[in-house]
Amino acid sequence: MIRGSKIFRPADVPESNASGYPPEFRESQRKRFNRRLGDHGGLRNFGVNQVRVAPGGQSSARHAHSAQDEFVYILDGELVLVTDAGREAVGPGVCIAFPAGTGDGHHFLNLTDRDATFLVVGDRAAGDEVTYPDIDLHLGTDRDGKRGFLRKNGEPYPPAPRD
Amino acid sequence: MIRGSKIFRPADVPESNASGYPPEFRESQRKRFNRRLGDHGGLRNFGVNQVRVAPGGQSSARHAHSAQDEFVYILDGELVLVTDAGREAVGPGVCIAFPAGTGDGHHFLNLTDRDATFLVVGDRAAGDEVTYPDIDLHLGTDRDGKRGFLRKNGEPYPPAPRD
Repeated sequence: MIRGSKIFRPADVPESNASGYPPEFRESQRKRFNRRLGDHGGLRNFGVNQVRVAPGGQSSARHAHSAQDEFVYILDGELVLVTDAGREAVGPGVCIAFPAGTGDGHHFLNLTDRDATFLVVGDRAAGDEVTYPDIDLHLGTDRDGKRGFLRKNGEPYPPAPRD
Repeated sequence: MIRGSKIFRPADVPESNASGYPPEFRESQRKRFNRRLGDHGGLRNFGVNQVRVAPGGQSSARHAHSAQDEFVYILDGELVLVTDAGREAVGPGVCIAFPAGTGDGHHFLNLTDRDATFLVVGDRAAGDEVTYPDIDLHLGTDRDGKRGFLRKNGEPYPPAPRD
């Protein structure tokens, strides 16, 4: 049978605050809850997540992609975008585009006392590397050609299941 | 200078009801207004459009992509999704995913008396072909290897500037 489309609401998709970061960086992610909308809909070429950031939380560690474009649309609440340019408050209906390859890391902080929610789209460009300016972390390829999280000196972090 | 991100609102982006369809299919698109949010933000790997469909309008001709995934998030108003499975009303907060390659064409109709608006994401997969089940139209490669709009018998439509 041809399944031409899938109609659903974000609330139909399980929410998770699991993290794939090395364990020492995971606690900062516990107030960030993802719903993988694109995966739920059977899409493969790009990801669409609904992200809820609880008060005091951050969307991710501050990071920049080498090859992946990223697009954010704020649905609800207020967040502070942090980049090399500084801080800027963003609220519902605001779009933020992060073109690949600029090297300028970004993330969002929830400094309010209520949840904030956004949609984020990212493609799955081959060979994407992720730099994290504020912590000793880099997502890339180690000396043996294996992809994973590395220290900035190139040493791989031990593998640790996502949790 | 590194430009790490671009913050904007959809209203900052020009709206257009131009169409690239062959002229005989353009009038049905005049009540559909696009804002190219991803392009405005400098993104290249995928497109994100905000689409406003005025009363009596349609989002596009009913179509299916061979290689491109598509994701829709309804922002405002009510639309009717048309696919091979029939019709279904969708409103704010509803997600609709259209995985590539199913062959099941889709579009949205605004059968209400007020505007309806959604976000749509589509990647830029190489070699994407688009089939239009309801009209004599196909987007693909002609016998000379040139990409463009064709009749279902493979004959190219004459080139016509987008308007």
